[in-house]
Amino acid sequence: MFEVNESLSPSQISAQAAQESRAEARRLRRPLRVALFGFGTVGSSVARILVESRPAGLELTHIFNRNVARKRVDWVPASVTWSEDADAVLAADVDIVVELAGGLDPAGGWVRRALGAGKSVVTANKKLIAFQGVELERLAASGGGHLKYGAAVAGGIPVIPGLEQGLAGDRIERIEGILNGTCNFILSKMEEGSEYAPVLAEAQAKGFAEADPTEDVGGFDARAKLAILMRLALRVSVNPEEIVPQPITAITAVDFSYARDLGCTIRQVARAERAGGKVAATVGPTLVALRSPLAWSRGTENMVIFTGHYGGDVVFSGHGAGGHPTAVAVVSDLLALAHGSRRVELPSTPAEVGAEFEVPHYIRFLVKDRPGIVADITGALAREHINIRAIVQTPGYPEHALPFVVTVEPCKSSVLKRALKSIPGKDYLLEEPLDLQILE
Amino acid sequence: MFEVNESLSPSQISAQAAQESRAEARRLRRPLRVALFGFGTVGSSVARILVESRPAGLELTHIFNRNVARKRVDWVPASVTWSEDADAVLAADVDIVVELAGGLDPAGGWVRRALGAGKSVVTANKKLIAFQGVELERLAASGGGHLKYGAAVAGGIPVIPGLEQGLAGDRIERIEGILNGTCNFILSKMEEGSEYAPVLAEAQAKGFAEADPTEDVGGFDARAKLAILMRLALRVSVNPEEIVPQPITAITAVDFSYARDLGCTIRQVARAERAGGKVAATVGPTLVALRSPLAWSRGTENMVIFTGHYGGDVVFSGHGAGGHPTAVAVVSDLLALAHGSRRVELPSTPAEVGAEFEVPHYIRFLVKDRPGIVADITGALAREHINIRAIVQTPGYPEHALPFVVTVEPCKSSVLKRALKSIPGKDYLLEEPLDLQILE
Repeated sequence: MFEVNESLSPSQISAQAAQESRAEARRLRRPLRVALFGFGTVGSSVARILVESRPAGLELTHIFNRNVARKRVDWVPASVTWSEDADAVLAADVDIVVELAGGLDPAGGWVRRALGAGKSVVTANKKLIAFQGVELERLAASGGGHLKYGAAVAGGIPVIPGLEQGLAGDRIERIEGILNGTCNFILSKMEEGSEYAPVLAEAQAKGFAEADPTEDVGGFDARAKLAILMRLALRVSVNPEEIVPQPITAITAVDFSYARDLGCTIRQVARAERAGGKVAATVGPTLVALRSPLAWSRGTENMVIFTGHYGGDVVFSGHGAGGHPTAVAVVSDLLALAHGSRRVELPSTPAEVGAEFEVPHYIRFLVKDRPGIVADITGALAREHINIRAIVQTPGYPEHALPFVVTVEPCKSSVLKRALKSIPGKDYLLEEPLDLQILE
Repeated sequence: MFEVNESLSPSQISAQAAQESRAEARRLRRPLRVALFGFGTVGSSVARILVESRPAGLELTHIFNRNVARKRVDWVPASVTWSEDADAVLAADVDIVVELAGGLDPAGGWVRRALGAGKSVVTANKKLIAFQGVELERLAASGGGHLKYGAAVAGGIPVIPGLEQGLAGDRIERIEGILNGTCNFILSKMEEGSEYAPVLAEAQAKGFAEADPTEDVGGFDARAKLAILMRLALRVSVNPEEIVPQPITAITAVDFSYARDLGCTIRQVARAERAGGKVAATVGPTLVALRSPLAWSRGTENMVIFTGHYGGDVVFSGHGAGGHPTAVAVVSDLLALAHGSRRVELPSTPAEVGAEFEVPHYIRFLVKDRPGIVADITGALAREHINIRAIVQTPGYPEHALPFVVTVEPCKSSVLKRALKSIPGKDYLLEEPLDLQILE
């Protein structure tokens, strides 16, 4: 079927074999053979769509999962091989490995082995792509397979295909996104008047939040997705760990009340911007104007806004997570492979996350009231040349635990932090001031 | 360079030559040679982006325009050939023809000749694609070239690439869109209290509306775009002329006032839905809830909402027209061709636009007041078994020209039309009742 070239290494030979087999499959119109790694919520939705819609050019042949016996369902065709032996499935005659296990290990190993053998990989694994995407794409290119990860960011919303195929002609200058459905569920519920703890419990009961919600509420999930979008949209590859996320856990119902007084609400926003050779990137709870698209997204929805030099703002929104929406992205990637569609691969250059946004800030203090507090605080801000925009204190709160808010004109977060640290005689501060960026 | 097969026709030989030349170009990493047909707003933006961003794999080689002398600009490289001879440019050694002249003729002829010769075509021509897209795709496939038209719907918003590459795995059941920026500009301005005529004049002064605005305000532009989306999303090919558009010209400031009383505003909405073997499709001014995404779009913005069986609602919005945004879509299509990306071509089946939406309606009457009018109207509706939802008459209008509104529960437009025609003694009706669908 193909000539063995003596100068090739065994893995190159295997890659060449896979490449020829794929080309052969297309020539013969043999469907591409698909192995699913992971049969959880997303994996079973992918299988469900493949079984129900029988897309031409694709055939589900293998399903791998640990303890596969308890996963087996009767609606999957009998021709599909169920297995708990990852090595055996990777060695089998499959053209595409769909990796839905998540995490760096062992998923990363499977993906590398599949790509090394010249197979194509479709994955929803944001962590793997955020941390190792550049290396894996190189591996795919050298093996002759393809790596597609449309499901890794914003689930069922075609943000990545839209970027690669429809916005490649622009020069994207800014990304603003609501990339984590769990945080959006919690914050949009809190907007209606609830406190954090009961809403988190509700999210956990509904399956929107994990038992340990740190990955989501701490901003780690969103920063991985932001790093992927930065590579594709801003064309800079960054170490995701350089983006220090601010958790949403410090937000209280009081903050939503003050935000509303300011014509805003609060969302977990991931954003990035190029500034000279560096890039600015943050993830955290942010005040967004009620009339901004970011305020429209409710429940587990995701939203991404790209600002292009030529095309201006483009907004995508929809269901960013959940089995079926994520499976739509996976199956769409599979169809693209079956149709011989190639990714529009745009080169990225390594960059440091070094710049800071200069934006207005919201600072909420919780104090035991006594005379002189405002003078202390405004004095500290003045020493760092930070201009105050407004001081807001609504009545109805107790004097022994009084929340009030200071908003300031655009300044760097690092300068503001220094100012807040320098407030003298902090005996009246019941907790660290909460500092949120305001997105205008 | 290639073997001539004696059994091929001259055009097949030419197609084969072009195909081999394109493959050769990629092998040799020679850039694909691009000819621009049309150097108006969009054409010059495309040239601008190509000149400024110098994308690898693409070279602008020809610009065709009538009276080309008055179009010539100095920022285009001297290597580009300016021409007013379409035949000569079509016969030249170019790989991709970018058609931006619009309309069926002569643009259609150029596109057919280019595709017949095995070249690829990128076009923003919604009319051509709506009426002849299926035939042209067949021609592209047989010639070995590619036809791309990401700019034909919603300009700079990657709706078509998003559909083809990111939503192909879903089964789209419904399309709702704001597809005409001119109408959206006019209606979102009227929402602020203006009447139609001065807003149209403002749109014309700003270049958002043509001297003869019929194509836009009459709904013909939006229906062509809807027909394209129906083919790609609902996978039905329809004759665009079967979609009878309702113009926005009958809308007055009074309607916006009543719409607001009902928690709504008015937008030109294009929508379609599959219903059995038939499809329902309409284009026209529509009441949309103020809390619906469709109400958010302002100015010349476009918006498209797809409802998928698996993925639920996905919303796209941004700049649907204008030189730069449309040029982003064109250049993105060019980049996709340069990267060897193929469209995910999804088969469509011919269908009749036969079904009707069963939705609530807003009916605004303008009457010379006298007793018995409401009895007449409600009687006519009752005879057709149409349930009334509300009768709204706000004070402050003169008795000799009194506008009031009746809203009715979901019913077919044809039944409602029959009921309105049967209202007895129409002496008091100063004009035909205005009947708008309400989108809930």
